[in-house]
Amino acid sequence: MTASVTRSEHDLLGDRDIPADAYWGIHTLRATENFPITGTPISAYPHLIDALAAVKEAAALANEELGLLEPRKASAIVAACQEIRVGKLHDQFVVDVIQGGAGTSTNMNANEVVANRALELLGHSKGQYRHLHPNEDVNLGQSTNDVYPTAVKIATVCSAHGLLKAMAALQDAFAAKAVEFRGVLKMGRTQLQDAVPMTLGQEFSAYAVMLDEDRSRLAEAVELIHEINLGATAIGTGLNAPAGYAEAARRHLAEITGLPLVTAANLVEATQDCGAFVQVSGVLKRIAVKLSKSCNDLRLLSSGPRAGLGEINLPPVQAGSSIMPGKVNPVIPEVVNQVAFEVIGNDVTITMAAEAGQLQLNAFEPIILHSLSESITHLRNACLILAERCVSGITANTEALRASVENSIGLVTALNPHIGYTTATDIAKEALATGRGVVELVLERGLLSAETLADLLQPETVAGRGQALA
Amino acid sequence: MTASVTRSEHDLLGDRDIPADAYWGIHTLRATENFPITGTPISAYPHLIDALAAVKEAAALANEELGLLEPRKASAIVAACQEIRVGKLHDQFVVDVIQGGAGTSTNMNANEVVANRALELLGHSKGQYRHLHPNEDVNLGQSTNDVYPTAVKIATVCSAHGLLKAMAALQDAFAAKAVEFRGVLKMGRTQLQDAVPMTLGQEFSAYAVMLDEDRSRLAEAVELIHEINLGATAIGTGLNAPAGYAEAARRHLAEITGLPLVTAANLVEATQDCGAFVQVSGVLKRIAVKLSKSCNDLRLLSSGPRAGLGEINLPPVQAGSSIMPGKVNPVIPEVVNQVAFEVIGNDVTITMAAEAGQLQLNAFEPIILHSLSESITHLRNACLILAERCVSGITANTEALRASVENSIGLVTALNPHIGYTTATDIAKEALATGRGVVELVLERGLLSAETLADLLQPETVAGRGQALA
Amino acid sequence: MTASVTRSEHDLLGDRDIPADAYWGIHTLRATENFPITGTPISAYPHLIDALAAVKEAAALANEELGLLEPRKASAIVAACQEIRVGKLHDQFVVDVIQGGAGTSTNMNANEVVANRALELLGHSKGQYRHLHPNEDVNLGQSTNDVYPTAVKIATVCSAHGLLKAMAALQDAFAAKAVEFRGVLKMGRTQLQDAVPMTLGQEFSAYAVMLDEDRSRLAEAVELIHEINLGATAIGTGLNAPAGYAEAARRHLAEITGLPLVTAANLVEATQDCGAFVQVSGVLKRIAVKLSKSCNDLRLLSSGPRAGLGEINLPPVQAGSSIMPGKVNPVIPEVVNQVAFEVIGNDVTITMAAEAGQLQLNAFEPIILHSLSESITHLRNACLILAERCVSGITANTEALRASVENSIGLVTALNPHIGYTTATDIAKEALATGRGVVELVLERGLLSAETLADLLQPETVAGRGQALA
Amino acid sequence: MTASVTRSEHDLLGDRDIPADAYWGIHTLRATENFPITGTPISAYPHLIDALAAVKEAAALANEELGLLEPRKASAIVAACQEIRVGKLHDQFVVDVIQGGAGTSTNMNANEVVANRALELLGHSKGQYRHLHPNEDVNLGQSTNDVYPTAVKIATVCSAHGLLKAMAALQDAFAAKAVEFRGVLKMGRTQLQDAVPMTLGQEFSAYAVMLDEDRSRLAEAVELIHEINLGATAIGTGLNAPAGYAEAARRHLAEITGLPLVTAANLVEATQDCGAFVQVSGVLKRIAVKLSKSCNDLRLLSSGPRAGLGEINLPPVQAGSSIMPGKVNPVIPEVVNQVAFEVIGNDVTITMAAEAGQLQLNAFEPIILHSLSESITHLRNACLILAERCVSGITANTEALRASVENSIGLVTALNPHIGYTTATDIAKEALATGRGVVELVLERGLLSAETLADLLQPETVAGRGQALA
Repeated sequence: MTASVTRSEHDLLGDRDIPADAYWGIHTLRATENFPITGTPISAYPHLIDALAAVKEAAALANEELGLLEPRKASAIVAACQEIRVGKLHDQFVVDVIQGGAGTSTNMNANEVVANRALELLGHSKGQYRHLHPNEDVNLGQSTNDVYPTAVKIATVCSAHGLLKAMAALQDAFAAKAVEFRGVLKMGRTQLQDAVPMTLGQEFSAYAVMLDEDRSRLAEAVELIHEINLGATAIGTGLNAPAGYAEAARRHLAEITGLPLVTAANLVEATQDCGAFVQVSGVLKRIAVKLSKSCNDLRLLSSGPRAGLGEINLPPVQAGSSIMPGKVNPVIPEVVNQVAFEVIGNDVTITMAAEAGQLQLNAFEPIILHSLSESITHLRNACLILAERCVSGITANTEALRASVENSIGLVTALNPHIGYTTATDIAKEALATGRGVVELVLERGLLSAETLADLLQPETVAGRGQALA
Repeated sequence: MTASVTRSEHDLLGDRDIPADAYWGIHTLRATENFPITGTPISAYPHLIDALAAVKEAAALANEELGLLEPRKASAIVAACQEIRVGKLHDQFVVDVIQGGAGTSTNMNANEVVANRALELLGHSKGQYRHLHPNEDVNLGQSTNDVYPTAVKIATVCSAHGLLKAMAALQDAFAAKAVEFRGVLKMGRTQLQDAVPMTLGQEFSAYAVMLDEDRSRLAEAVELIHEINLGATAIGTGLNAPAGYAEAARRHLAEITGLPLVTAANLVEATQDCGAFVQVSGVLKRIAVKLSKSCNDLRLLSSGPRAGLGEINLPPVQAGSSIMPGKVNPVIPEVVNQVAFEVIGNDVTITMAAEAGQLQLNAFEPIILHSLSESITHLRNACLILAERCVSGITANTEALRASVENSIGLVTALNPHIGYTTATDIAKEALATGRGVVELVLERGLLSAETLADLLQPETVAGRGQALA
Repeated sequence: MTASVTRSEHDLLGDRDIPADAYWGIHTLRATENFPITGTPISAYPHLIDALAAVKEAAALANEELGLLEPRKASAIVAACQEIRVGKLHDQFVVDVIQGGAGTSTNMNANEVVANRALELLGHSKGQYRHLHPNEDVNLGQSTNDVYPTAVKIATVCSAHGLLKAMAALQDAFAAKAVEFRGVLKMGRTQLQDAVPMTLGQEFSAYAVMLDEDRSRLAEAVELIHEINLGATAIGTGLNAPAGYAEAARRHLAEITGLPLVTAANLVEATQDCGAFVQVSGVLKRIAVKLSKSCNDLRLLSSGPRAGLGEINLPPVQAGSSIMPGKVNPVIPEVVNQVAFEVIGNDVTITMAAEAGQLQLNAFEPIILHSLSESITHLRNACLILAERCVSGITANTEALRASVENSIGLVTALNPHIGYTTATDIAKEALATGRGVVELVLERGLLSAETLADLLQPETVAGRGQALA
Repeated sequence: MTASVTRSEHDLLGDRDIPADAYWGIHTLRATENFPITGTPISAYPHLIDALAAVKEAAALANEELGLLEPRKASAIVAACQEIRVGKLHDQFVVDVIQGGAGTSTNMNANEVVANRALELLGHSKGQYRHLHPNEDVNLGQSTNDVYPTAVKIATVCSAHGLLKAMAALQDAFAAKAVEFRGVLKMGRTQLQDAVPMTLGQEFSAYAVMLDEDRSRLAEAVELIHEINLGATAIGTGLNAPAGYAEAARRHLAEITGLPLVTAANLVEATQDCGAFVQVSGVLKRIAVKLSKSCNDLRLLSSGPRAGLGEINLPPVQAGSSIMPGKVNPVIPEVVNQVAFEVIGNDVTITMAAEAGQLQLNAFEPIILHSLSESITHLRNACLILAERCVSGITANTEALRASVENSIGLVTALNPHIGYTTATDIAKEALATGRGVVELVLERGLLSAETLADLLQPETVAGRGQALA
């Protein structure tokens, strides 16, 4: 942040030198000094930067429409915002992701970058705010308290779309395996103890169905954050925002973003409430819980190669050990587990931040945004990598799985209706005492023919009413 | 549990003496010995006991309908279940609320109590299971793995209805205050710093709106748990449940409970998945967060009586201190805060339990039920007590509140459009330097007439677009 | 709480009728009406009731010593407290465990019960407070703000001793198995994949060592809560407590409880700080994490009987399924897992309650006490039941375990130094390709003699530097 | 990662091209492809990179000492490690911070970078592993399972030292204010209600004492992670690590790092246990809870300027609002609150990761490291910024504070012993009814002389036994 040439800017605390080539200004400078927490600037969240630019653009158009902003200024602001929205100037968003001030510094950073770029477009130098002012023009009719939550919501909607797509890809990968493994017989387990037979296809279809349900829940939660409070200004009373502004700004923002945004019915409530973020995070946690459970299962089913369950094989993606030659580990499910743990922890962070809001505002939205962004982005990456580098390459040890069914005692439960309860119990006892298999014993005693037994062990029969995914 | 007279029962581990007057049997006895954890029996959750009886009744009717259970036996089972559902025999449900076995002991407890009561109704002694058997008759076509989750869902639906009603009562109390205080002017605050004026009615309307939204979210989440897996038996394949059983049992259960229950499309998934419980708990956490925030506000606004904000008065409900005469504390909001903290902790417990499910079953549903039940019941009680003993008796210190607005510097923001930005800034500076009020200075300088000022400070004007609850 | 005969009591809110036979009075009555949250009265925590009585007794003795309380009154108070400490009158402690008011209602409940019992001992009727007053005599020189935290700390110390003992019992059970299984060879696993050989004794010794370390951590954390703030009165300034009182009260309390209590150096800090409780809860969470991990392992190692790892057998303690004959489930580890999840959730509750303290007091200590008590008590019960009903009866499938080592590919890592890296890799490849065992191949190729191999597979050799518990 | 010139490397999955100038190799390449989760490479944790280099250096020296590694190779490895430890080559540590594989990829990344730099120092090209091999030489006698936890512990110790220093700076800032404000009288509050007088110095001394205690707890927890498992190799049995290696490696590592490291007594336990990390995180959470509470207080005490408590003034560090001129917000405490929420969430993440360990290893240490590092670093930055930019510049509104005491009703509690309980109650009633001050009424009635009253309101008298920090 050193520069041989600087410009001077002024705020209520005094004057400061700003690098001449910086689009950000004095408010941003102070914020970077006040919040040296993570070292990660808000540009790490491109959806947020785009959303801020979209809000500024919509506000400028609304202000122009209402005759509050000269068309020349409005056009310059709009042009600057559009540059940002195609990816330019993101490196000028330098405030730390963890910051005090309820997002004021992020909003100020946006106001300054937009103003300085607009000034250039109007033929002025950066910092010549008398021609176009970050607060009086770019922020006209706005307050951090309506701009920031609105931008956070739009950014979250956009990130969530990415996650929904990744979940769909993972669901497809599981569903394809459900079809592929529909004829693979195996023992089902409850409480890690052998239970009754099922198909491996059913096992994988359950993972696909879980994801399908989770996608529905996430889509519902995301719908809630289409409700914005733009026009609320400081505390929701809309002070200093003229009649018609809120609606005009919303209309322009909806057009710019292509999102069906609505203005909250009660802006005082909407300005202080973080319930919609808590809801989204709660659903992310639900997704994390299910993903983690599925990965636990994949690791368990692929345990071995010899002293484990050894039912399925995950595709090897890297060497597992330097000291143990040939060892391959389930590293993809493991990384997904860890993302899940992170998301669950983030939910607690978001919960505490939401609970800590006071009176007319929640000052802690920056950590809510930070945690939500990480949860959504990491979950998205985890779903994609799990689909591509693990699930789609899974193979089954079909013969061993079938043998485990034939060798199981739990099979007797399925033969119950055919050989009678008493005989079934006898067989079970003998199997247990001798270590022999149920199929073997039933054949030996001539209780059922090999054909009948084979029929009863048809995958379709075994699958019963627990259907695989259509 | 001592009794002079006992009967002997048998299971795979051997024989045990059971008190002759106990409706529970050997499986329940072993469970009470295995799980001496909390000392609280499952009868603490009457909705669960009723739901278990409803499931057993529905299963008996379905089995009878399909010709699997003699009408005599079915009638006796139904009659026993109906007794339980009107509140009898609840003291026979003695297994600990925290238990291993995925709910098996709870299901066994129900099978035994129903069987023994049915035996009595058929003229037999308790324990004469050759006439009617807990497993073979009462549990016919069922498994803990479908009975237990189904009962937990029905119980949760019923408890949640109680919470929804309590939330509505609290919402009404806040909304009534929003109307009562619609003309009370006060300073709004952001980040605990004076911001701009608003009405106290708006402040209370925000609390009402929050509850309204939370009720919608809870209702949506509760809808999800109308999906049951009855008929899945052990792992979702429906093994040993005859064709038609799942649908018949669901139909009877819907009739008995009056709930629009549906059978899950994929029973393997439905049997292992706890997502719906995680979702309900996530929404309970959201409710807790908002309730806690509202109570934090009430405690803050009523702080004083002299060295605090002193904006509102909570009705005194008990003496606050033995050592400080006359001290009254905000004990009702405080107890609500604590319930909120408990609910948030319970959500973590439920999350961990859901994540820990393995393969075809989640063995940890008992702690999920326990935590959910506590969260729902305590939140319900907290909402009712907050409405009745606190919110409905709140009064406002109207004069002091209006004075704080007139004395505030933030007021200048509202006068901006009327006296010009430069003059407004001048006034603000003088007010800050001298400690005098903005209204006073504006009048002294003759910038606005008393009438105009009074108009600008009309509550309706101040409230602006942040409308109170209709 | 109805009674044909009542007495009338008075407080700042007016008069109320109290059942004539109740030892509690008007403050308790109002509290029961204000906090109908859980239905569980504070008598559920006998250690707390005893601790309250101990504090009241110590205060009376200190007050008598300082000439502030007539010996007659002091003796009566002491006698009443001693009755309570041997278990009498506990049913008179009726305030809900979740309550507002920072523990005031619990303290008032204690003051009233002690006063009324003392009145009886002095020959007066209950409620004749002019002879001996709950506040002016029993609570003399005290405030809820020093009495309550002090009592909570003493109660927690006592409960924690119970937990420490239970953990020692569980450690002993694991250590005994470590010795019993010291000669049982098995495959070690990392990331659920076969790694290198070890002994089953080592596996169990790890569980014992974990508990040993956790006991040390708990003992350290418990030591911190021997620091009390008795004498601080309202906010730590000791207002209205005469010189010498704090020290005298501490001395008597230490004698009564037999605990090495110390008075905090800074009473203002000590009165508002909940750090010591957060610390204790953090250690409880640590214990829960390790217990849960150990139980996960036990369930995994005993999975089967045929389609699982089948390394060890947990003693059957109840039938596992009605539908699957002969199924036995790991219900004891499962219940311990659930207690662990509860403790981890409680830690979040305690964290939030501690964070929510404001200025000179934390008003949320009742939920901290409640959560701590549940965590400690349930962990204690879980450790005992795990030791008695599970660990001590575990048996090993020694032959199968040894075969899994001989059959493993990981064994080759151990032969590396003896047959050379190149040959070892060859053997591993052949084993992998043919499914044959390493031992078999090494013998077949004459690379090592049977004796040498047997030597290398001696448990002591395999155990290496990872020693079992001494 | 594109390069015009590449070298080819080989692993068990096949051949891959590596950029010729990369010090990392094929294992690192695969890891970057497998774990595209956060985009943050492990070089973000310089303490970890240094610690890895220290471990590799220590191992090389131990291997040389035991005659297992040629001195030429050892010297080259040592030299490469020393370069890394002075900050070079950190950009070559490119694996994602969230990764599967229990840290294998981080260890492999280190092995490859050290090997390639050592090769260069020996005059070879990068990738010429026949001269010096990442696994066979750099990783000699090691396994990820002992290297990684050891490095994580050393890195955590180093970060924690930074936090301890920052906490000390913050403690000093609070303590300086405690001295500065020792004569400032104010009302103490419990449950946000006026209680009894105290000094502002006492209020600040409490914050200093809290930090002092927390530093002790952190130092204790950090001591526990000086216990390492180097020499355990794969699962703690020390397989393939020769006699004397563990002790020699520990000795060298202690010398290199200057830390009093000890080798765990039971290496099997030490290799699978994450208890020490859970303990450290628990203490970090405790620190977060107290910091957050202190910041809540600072924000509350500085609320206003007119419609708040207005007791203290935080130094303005940036403009608070664009729409409300002159508004200044407590942004520094706000950012600290958010760091606290993050740390509390991270503790849940760490808890879940620790609980998820299975059998002989915890595969989830990477997320534990990630969360711990963030918690420690962010807390450190938060403490420093709070000390420098907030606490050290706080001023008190002394006159208003004194007036609030004189005007309070709570003051009457302090006058009790001097004017008698009955008169005191009378005064309190009149003050309440008339809104007048207690001091005023006492003087008017001539109950005490102005001198006596002034004496009673001496800060030293008021402070009583709750002493300020020496």
